[in-house]
Amino acid sequence: MTKPLNVGMIGYGFMGRTHSNAYRKAPNFFDLPYKPVLKTICGLEEKEAKAFADRWGYESYVTDWRKVIDDKSIDVVDICVPNNYHAEIAIAAAEAGKMIICEKPLARTAAEAEPMVQAVEKAGVANLVSFNYRRVPAVTLAKKLIDEGRLGKIFHYRANFLQDWTISSQVPQGGMATWRLDVKAAGSGVTGDLLAHCIDTAMWHNGPISAVCGMTETFVKQRMHAETGKVEPVGIDDACTFFCRFDNGSLGNFESTRYARGHKALYTFEINGENASIAWDLHDLHRLSYFDHRDDSIVRGWRSVHVTDGDMPYMGKWWVPGLQIGYEHSFVHQVADFLENAAKGQPTSPTFREALATQKVCDAVLASAKAGKWETIKY
Amino acid sequence: MTKPLNVGMIGYGFMGRTHSNAYRKAPNFFDLPYKPVLKTICGLEEKEAKAFADRWGYESYVTDWRKVIDDKSIDVVDICVPNNYHAEIAIAAAEAGKMIICEKPLARTAAEAEPMVQAVEKAGVANLVSFNYRRVPAVTLAKKLIDEGRLGKIFHYRANFLQDWTISSQVPQGGMATWRLDVKAAGSGVTGDLLAHCIDTAMWHNGPISAVCGMTETFVKQRMHAETGKVEPVGIDDACTFFCRFDNGSLGNFESTRYARGHKALYTFEINGENASIAWDLHDLHRLSYFDHRDDSIVRGWRSVHVTDGDMPYMGKWWVPGLQIGYEHSFVHQVADFLENAAKGQPTSPTFREALATQKVCDAVLASAKAGKWETIKY
Amino acid sequence: MTKPLNVGMIGYGFMGRTHSNAYRKAPNFFDLPYKPVLKTICGLEEKEAKAFADRWGYESYVTDWRKVIDDKSIDVVDICVPNNYHAEIAIAAAEAGKMIICEKPLARTAAEAEPMVQAVEKAGVANLVSFNYRRVPAVTLAKKLIDEGRLGKIFHYRANFLQDWTISSQVPQGGMATWRLDVKAAGSGVTGDLLAHCIDTAMWHNGPISAVCGMTETFVKQRMHAETGKVEPVGIDDACTFFCRFDNGSLGNFESTRYARGHKALYTFEINGENASIAWDLHDLHRLSYFDHRDDSIVRGWRSVHVTDGDMPYMGKWWVPGLQIGYEHSFVHQVADFLENAAKGQPTSPTFREALATQKVCDAVLASAKAGKWETIKY
Amino acid sequence: MTKPLNVGMIGYGFMGRTHSNAYRKAPNFFDLPYKPVLKTICGLEEKEAKAFADRWGYESYVTDWRKVIDDKSIDVVDICVPNNYHAEIAIAAAEAGKMIICEKPLARTAAEAEPMVQAVEKAGVANLVSFNYRRVPAVTLAKKLIDEGRLGKIFHYRANFLQDWTISSQVPQGGMATWRLDVKAAGSGVTGDLLAHCIDTAMWHNGPISAVCGMTETFVKQRMHAETGKVEPVGIDDACTFFCRFDNGSLGNFESTRYARGHKALYTFEINGENASIAWDLHDLHRLSYFDHRDDSIVRGWRSVHVTDGDMPYMGKWWVPGLQIGYEHSFVHQVADFLENAAKGQPTSPTFREALATQKVCDAVLASAKAGKWETIKY
Repeated sequence: MTKPLNVGMIGYGFMGRTHSNAYRKAPNFFDLPYKPVLKTICGLEEKEAKAFADRWGYESYVTDWRKVIDDKSIDVVDICVPNNYHAEIAIAAAEAGKMIICEKPLARTAAEAEPMVQAVEKAGVANLVSFNYRRVPAVTLAKKLIDEGRLGKIFHYRANFLQDWTISSQVPQGGMATWRLDVKAAGSGVTGDLLAHCIDTAMWHNGPISAVCGMTETFVKQRMHAETGKVEPVGIDDACTFFCRFDNGSLGNFESTRYARGHKALYTFEINGENASIAWDLHDLHRLSYFDHRDDSIVRGWRSVHVTDGDMPYMGKWWVPGLQIGYEHSFVHQVADFLENAAKGQPTSPTFREALATQKVCDAVLASAKAGKWETIKY
Repeated sequence: MTKPLNVGMIGYGFMGRTHSNAYRKAPNFFDLPYKPVLKTICGLEEKEAKAFADRWGYESYVTDWRKVIDDKSIDVVDICVPNNYHAEIAIAAAEAGKMIICEKPLARTAAEAEPMVQAVEKAGVANLVSFNYRRVPAVTLAKKLIDEGRLGKIFHYRANFLQDWTISSQVPQGGMATWRLDVKAAGSGVTGDLLAHCIDTAMWHNGPISAVCGMTETFVKQRMHAETGKVEPVGIDDACTFFCRFDNGSLGNFESTRYARGHKALYTFEINGENASIAWDLHDLHRLSYFDHRDDSIVRGWRSVHVTDGDMPYMGKWWVPGLQIGYEHSFVHQVADFLENAAKGQPTSPTFREALATQKVCDAVLASAKAGKWETIKY
Repeated sequence: MTKPLNVGMIGYGFMGRTHSNAYRKAPNFFDLPYKPVLKTICGLEEKEAKAFADRWGYESYVTDWRKVIDDKSIDVVDICVPNNYHAEIAIAAAEAGKMIICEKPLARTAAEAEPMVQAVEKAGVANLVSFNYRRVPAVTLAKKLIDEGRLGKIFHYRANFLQDWTISSQVPQGGMATWRLDVKAAGSGVTGDLLAHCIDTAMWHNGPISAVCGMTETFVKQRMHAETGKVEPVGIDDACTFFCRFDNGSLGNFESTRYARGHKALYTFEINGENASIAWDLHDLHRLSYFDHRDDSIVRGWRSVHVTDGDMPYMGKWWVPGLQIGYEHSFVHQVADFLENAAKGQPTSPTFREALATQKVCDAVLASAKAGKWETIKY
Repeated sequence: MTKPLNVGMIGYGFMGRTHSNAYRKAPNFFDLPYKPVLKTICGLEEKEAKAFADRWGYESYVTDWRKVIDDKSIDVVDICVPNNYHAEIAIAAAEAGKMIICEKPLARTAAEAEPMVQAVEKAGVANLVSFNYRRVPAVTLAKKLIDEGRLGKIFHYRANFLQDWTISSQVPQGGMATWRLDVKAAGSGVTGDLLAHCIDTAMWHNGPISAVCGMTETFVKQRMHAETGKVEPVGIDDACTFFCRFDNGSLGNFESTRYARGHKALYTFEINGENASIAWDLHDLHRLSYFDHRDDSIVRGWRSVHVTDGDMPYMGKWWVPGLQIGYEHSFVHQVADFLENAAKGQPTSPTFREALATQKVCDAVLASAKAGKWETIKY
């Protein structure tokens, strides 16, 4: 017997859509202890909020996020607004005893994230940060292969997140569509937006990063603000590269940019172990590349595993072998895991605390780039 | 203002799931003239039907498909049962004035399909056969590129549909899960199940096929029946290859099998024109390969187009560039197109009549294989 | 102690170059019982013949091939002229007791090839037909994997040879550069030139073909003759598709065309067995794709084997792992194998007799296409 | 009329073979002003030297490299010995007025390389360092595309060189086969051996590197010496990662390791420009990936250019479109260019002076890794 679980969604932008879709689909495919009910959508513009409610089947809409917090019937608060609003909303939600799903990165800085962690832990509420790529089946499979010890000792972890959508200097900063270019809203550029994903996956796969050394660049120095129309200095990092050392002795190399012509959202990682290696990329997210040195030498090669069979992570819930799922499904898996764990009183990774560690690495990378030297990280 | 449209779904198997998902998702992503309402699910087993209704949000369930037909409130009948039931249900639905979406192939033979076409045309009801792969964005894009004349005169059309799930002689025939191996239920083997998709796409892309010459094989000659437990002769074709001539002078080469180890659902096609060529496959359905001879020679090569940008067919409705959709979305597009056209009183391709043409080609292929000579096709 | 072996090369065209290069390189990389000496080059035009001799280090040149036959010092006659000259030269060479390497196809027809076989067998001379692709390491590896039984029972053999160089109707027929389009010189079009390769490999890999059914097309019906300047009907097949049955019960599907825009020399094959499958293509000839169903299911996928390690066929003789060889090396391997076998008095496959079988399949395919029905093949 | 050019080869190891092959093949395929004559091979072991001379057709062999220098008939000295011998031999050769081709890296350090540059410049002799990958046709094509301005402003240059042959701690250091692991012979590990290639290509493509920041690691801390049998500390870098800034404002990210399981010799680079991007890798060296943002958006994608047509760099000299060449051909091109330029009194890039710049970057990377901070480079 599934219990209804009332969802209050804050934010009707791109992430509001991915999360709403996830709540709707999860119970069609997974056997869940809760049945999500889309109770309230909250967004700044009433007309937009109403249209979103109609489209997605929310029972109501509000324009002030505090009303979501104050609504006793709401069980889960889902935060899909720009980064600068995460802390205030999340802390209020925690204090109100709500479960919380928060979009990534947790906050603009570790300093801002720290009280969020304290708030959810003090309140004892279920909490999750939406590093959704962990739950792409191929990425989850990679974790499984590592945990089974198939790779042996790890030597290298390599990850990139390459985009090309801000090459034109005519792209503005700020506003609804381009707040990610506005340092006040986003906190940082590719580091918080994209490398945070890479770091989250990397530390999940390969353990803590102990020290980093990075370089950043801002190619377009000033952009018009989308709301004010004023040309203003750009405060974010357009590109960031860093190398690092993991606690387990392996080396990391990470790079992100929004100036890699030809790549829309090319998140890639590769892990080299003593016995085997793994590679993956988001542009073909349904495949995992795997090389096993223990194969007979004459038939040894990189395997392209089409992660669609029923024994693959999450895939038993979807279609039949050979038929791929896509980007949106990572959010469905996230909701399903969150609800299953919440019903058992168990945490769902990455928690706020785990996301704080990612934030600390991001902060260290930016500090390192500024100082031109290594930074060690204290968790 | 969208009108509700009541859906009566017949069949709760794999296709019942893909279609139910499509009705639920379509209005979240597309601006539709109708809002589909999941009214009734019909399936043989009451317990299963009830569970399906609960999971997908159907308002009711029945175990006799005639009740769906007789229900005046039902607007659309969606037929997702084995092929041997298509004709009877579709004709009854047409006579009751229902819109009809029918799974492919239209029927087991052209002779069985013919009265279905007559019924829907006589009744003047909206009708569609679910050759869903047409509406994978990359496949729709291929059609667009051909229609724009980018390929020039077409010389070759090549398509395969390769699977490997029936290699073991322990796989039974008949029953819920394996009715596709039972000639009484399916009508034929890979020809009707898989090549029908290839033929539908091919004639959409490249016009009518005028004559065919084929070969079939049944590798496993007898299998246990899933329901009776008796070992019985296998009546279906396990593999079928044919070549053909199109009305436009181009040559076709088609092959399907369920004995191609390593391929789960590898539908591939390639089209070679005077100026350009196109290739696609279902295992990476979000990509289209394109070669244009008019490119500068030193940078000329096959392009791998990641069909995710907003200006690609259907993709403006989904996520952002670089983020792929999957198999299930082809059904969402199908529902969206069907509803939009229905509201305008326009047919949605492939109609029953178009699917009859595909059936005729399938029949001719099988007849040719039996006779060991060419068969011409009369539409 | 290696003995010198005097080579008389007949033909200084494209194949004359590939063979000359092979004789020069073989002893640098292989430990051979003979040291090839480039004795005489024979070609129609004296100036060209002399230039070729200078470039490649031939000791002499002649313009009449009979002088090569009559030269007692010549040990090996290598025939690299258009197909219509193969029979006369080969028979004369055999009668003169020369070893013979002959370019493929053996002749224009099986009828023409038959006395060639008889001549070499009567004379007891070493003989080889240059189906060089067998000795691309990845193709040789495929043979090894099949022979080891890794694939299990074979169900399907699929091969294509796709080119695009004759799409323009301005390409002439006949003459030095385009004799392959002249039916008098070539015997047939893509069937003898390209499918012959596919058939040779297929029967080597998978045993005899018992029956075929084919279709051919000539897209450009007339072309100017390169020598006479006259527009004449085109007598060759521009495209040919056939399916077939092998003696071992497997099915074949073959296609070749020179109208596949975007493919220069795309010879591909794929073999599907009960337990494993293999795929290869000439555009990345240093790789073999391999799928093994017996792999653990969660890491099962097509492997891309980079055939460059020292334990791969022939590769121990070349560079180091990861460093690829190319097209020309298949000819070096052919020469090396031929010389090694000749020293031991052993035949080198494919012999004239084996190439005759390939010729018979080609003839049957063309006859089948003409008659519109199956043809069985008697070897 | 070609003049003979006497070659004195010093070193009969792997590189001695690649260079010898190049001298032999170059005149068969290129129209050269000189005809290379393999005059003398020099190597430490007489028996080996003699065998090498026999195999490759050297007229004589010696075991003391000074005899090559002293031989007045020698025109070109080709240095294919471990790095620690480069300086002494090259300086002596220059002083003797010989043309010099020297294997890469030029020396173990910039300090060691400096007098080599001075020597060749003072002597005015033709000189070249064998960074052969520049002359893989696809890499040369990349240079051409950049120089034509197709990429526009460059933002990123990314290169890796990944191997896996030293993962086992049982691999020794020192000796003939593994001198690359001995810091005394090699000077450094992956930095001088592999990254030097990446840096050479990068500065050729993208101009000078102004500052670097790197990290190195030695995973296996001690290895047995191949000659002494003693276990000794390992002095080389097993892995090296660095990022950098180019003079043109673009950012670089470079990584090399011999611990990347699954990669034999995977040299890769990618260049992202405002309008277009390029990518290449050594495991498929005959292809260049190219993305052009100016393509029509619906057919825009990464192009896989099969660099085999006659209008591609160097390819007009080889076979026909579609037929690939391999690793060894880069050395043939190098010899051909060197001889053509030498005849005209023109330098061939990369000269000793250019290779010194690469050496300075290598030194700076290692110094940076040691110091844990950026190093600027003065050329």
